[in-house]
This record gives sequence, C-alpha cells and structure tokens, in this order.
Amino acid sequence: MTYCVGMVLERGLVFMSDTRTNAGLDNISTFRKMTIWETPGECVITIMSAGNLATTQAVVSLLEERAKSPEERTPALLGVPSMFQAVRMVAETLREVIGQHGNGGLQSEASFKATLLVGGQVKGSAPRLFMVYPEGNFIEASTDTPFFQIGETKYGRPILVRAFDSGMSFEEAMKLLLVSFDSTVKANLSVGAPFDYHFYAADSLTTGRAGRIALDDPYFQSVSQDWGDKLKAALDSLPGYEFEG
Amino acid sequence: MTYCVGMVLERGLVFMSDTRTNAGLDNISTFRKMTIWETPGECVITIMSAGNLATTQAVVSLLEERAKSPEERTPALLGVPSMFQAVRMVAETLREVIGQHGNGGLQSEASFKATLLVGGQVKGSAPRLFMVYPEGNFIEASTDTPFFQIGETKYGRPILVRAFDSGMSFEEAMKLLLVSFDSTVKANLSVGAPFDYHFYAADSLTTGRAGRIALDDPYFQSVSQDWGDKLKAALDSLPGYEFEG
Repeated sequence: MTYCVGMVLERGLVFMSDTRTNAGLDNISTFRKMTIWETPGECVITIMSAGNLATTQAVVSLLEERAKSPEERTPALLGVPSMFQAVRMVAETLREVIGQHGNGGLQSEASFKATLLVGGQVKGSAPRLFMVYPEGNFIEASTDTPFFQIGETKYGRPILVRAFDSGMSFEEAMKLLLVSFDSTVKANLSVGAPFDYHFYAADSLTTGRAGRIALDDPYFQSVSQDWGDKLKAALDSLPGYEFEG
Repeated sequence: MTYCVGMVLERGLVFMSDTRTNAGLDNISTFRKMTIWETPGECVITIMSAGNLATTQAVVSLLEERAKSPEERTPALLGVPSMFQAVRMVAETLREVIGQHGNGGLQSEASFKATLLVGGQVKGSAPRLFMVYPEGNFIEASTDTPFFQIGETKYGRPILVRAFDSGMSFEEAMKLLLVSFDSTVKANLSVGAPFDYHFYAADSLTTGRAGRIALDDPYFQSVSQDWGDKLKAALDSLPGYEFEG
C-alpha cells in the first residue's frame, strides 16, 4: 500500500508521499514515490504514485526518457503547452504500461494497476492538480475538492476534511499532512516513513521546498507524540453527555 | 456497509451500531443491527452485526427461536453456562446460515458473509467481548486490544486508538463513540444515523442504558459541529513547522 496526498492551496501546490512498498508482509522496502520534473521558468511537474511498483517505475522511466531526449522521442513531458496536455501524456503512458503487462503475458495474482497524482504549472496558466486512474482517465482538483489522496486514504482523511483550508501556509500544510500521515502509519503497516514532500510556490516555475521527513525527525516525533494528548484534550473539551433519568 | 464498535471498559461493556443498510446506492434503509437478550440476574448478551442483512437477520431469528423455546430447541442461547459457550452457539448459527445460502442454491454477486460482535456476561464470570468471523471462528477482546470495530472501521479508528481509556465513564465513552461515528458518517455514505447504543454495567446482569441517538439529537449535533473546531484548535496548538534555511 501507499499513502500520498496532493493539495491545492492559494499559495501553491503541496505534495507528500510515503516510501514504503511491500510484496507480502515479509518483503518490505523503501522506494521513492515522488518524481519532480522542471524546466526552470517554463514548467514544473510533480508525480506521485500508488499501486504496482513495476508499473509506476516504468511510467516514470518512460516519461524521463521522453523528457531527456525530446529530439528523439516526442512529445516530451516538459515540452507540453499546458498541464492538461502533461497529464494526458502521463495518463497515456500509464495505460500503455499497464496494457503491456496486463495483456498477453503471464498473469499475476497481484494487479498491475497504479493510480497517480500529477500536479504542477506550465508558464501562462495556473497550477493544477490531477488524479489519474489506471484506465488512463483523470479528474482535476477544484475549489470544492481541493485535495486528493491515493493509496490507504481512510485513516488520514478525517483530519484533512476537518482542518484543510486553502488559505493555509506551507508550514501549516506540513503540520496537517504530518498528522494525517501519522494517523495512517499508526494504523496500517504498509504505509511507512520517511515521507517525501514538495511545496511548489505558485508562479515560481521552479522546484520549491522539497525534502524528506524521517521517522526520527524531531518535529515529526513531537507531532506524533503531542497529537494524542491534543486529541484527548479536544475530546475532553467537548460538552459531556448526560444520560436521561 | 455498517459501522459497529464494542468496547470493554472497567465498568462494563459498551456497544454502538449504525442503522443504515444499502443494496446499491439507490436502495437504502434503516435496520436495527443490535440485539439484546437477557435473563435478569442470570445473563445479558448483546449482538451487533455487519454484512449481509438476510444472513444477520436469519442468525438473530434462529437465536431468538432457540432462546424463546428452550424446551423445543436446545441448547438455548440464554441457557448457556458461559459467554464462551454463548459465542460458540452464535458462531455456529452464523456458519449454518451462511452455509445454507452459500452452497447449492443460486449464487449472488453480493456475499452472504457477515461478521458479528458478541458481548455480555453470564453469572459467575466476568463480562466478555468477542468478534465472530463468517467462517465461524472468533477472537476475544483483551487488555491489549480492548475494543473491536466491524464494517467501515478505518475513518473512525484513529480517534479510538488515541483516546480510548478502559477507565473512562459511560458518558465519556458515549462522547468518544459519537466522535468516531461522526467521522465515519461524514466520509462514507453507507454508514448513517440513527445510532443504537447499549451500555452494560459489569455485574448488573440486566440490560443497561440502551437507546438510540438520532441525527438531529442536540448532543450529537453539538459534538458534530464542535469537533471540527476543536480539531483545528488542537492542530493549531501543535508546534509550528519551520523550513530550514
């Protein structure tokens, strides 16, 4: 499993992904699930993936090949005129890879499917965030639904639903995401630290603050430990129930 | 889907279940998923169910028949010498019903499976809580795992994990459960109010406070509305993140 969140804020786009992959319970590894492409001043695109690791790595490799040698393989991801064209290319690549593995070859019990979050900005238009389905179709985040989750989405969702605010700062977004990831990690063994992040500032057209939060990161540790106490205190501060009679 | 929680507290057993059943998105109904049997002074047993409604209703009907006419059909649920024997009987009945529908007859796309929570007390031993699987085997709650959830368990789990305390009062348990149910209802259309509850006081050997919380219950409304603010405040009170450099 996996847990990735992409959010559209007023000040830009926010991405966070875990790094745990597993094939069964006794075969776990750490893999990066976030890839950032940029042509400074022109275009920045971030992709996060959930699902079959071979599929998502193949998608990223194909996109990288096409990005690096545009003269040989066109169209190239970084040469697209809009985010819509970028996500179409990503989606088509995803469908292509799944189709190659899924049809005609050996069948596996595990699915070859994968789901992607694709977000970024191309010069001349606003930042946009998309969720791409294994079938190659996709949806875009909107003011009504300003964030997407993929992978193990349920445990970390209530806090996002309650506390998301599109006007929040990147620092506040980091805090919110770490609480959401912490709730998920505590409940599902197949989601694990470290967590990769990218905070893309709108209209910067360059990679923003990007890095990795390790399990032993002091800030993450303090959030993880304090959150239980804060939740209990929040619960205590709700009015008490009284049975009738 | 369904959401039911059973908890073992120092002062007794706590049960809460939602009442929504659905077959598809356009066929939703309200059904009671909690049944309480008692022989005052001897034995109190509460069952909550998640899964195929026909299966769970058949299980309850069979158990009721057996409970009401013990001279005709033995053994009767309320005549068992221990909670372990009670849950064995419930589990055997569940397996019998699933077997009848699952084998030899028409097959359905929907599963005939169901999962049950069975808790109560038989005179002479402590209150006990069990989770019964469709296969007819079962596990018991312990001090390490003092509560069980069935149905749509994920959204409402983080707050239970963080705030459960076996020493809590029934009033505190009601508050915690309503927050957990509220998070679930907000995220999954197939879980819905009203919520049935039963708070069984240890060693009372009689049905405890039992009733129903409606969607428009003023207390539930205030919890539902306040919780978002309290969560946000709790998040705000965590230390702020600072990017390096």
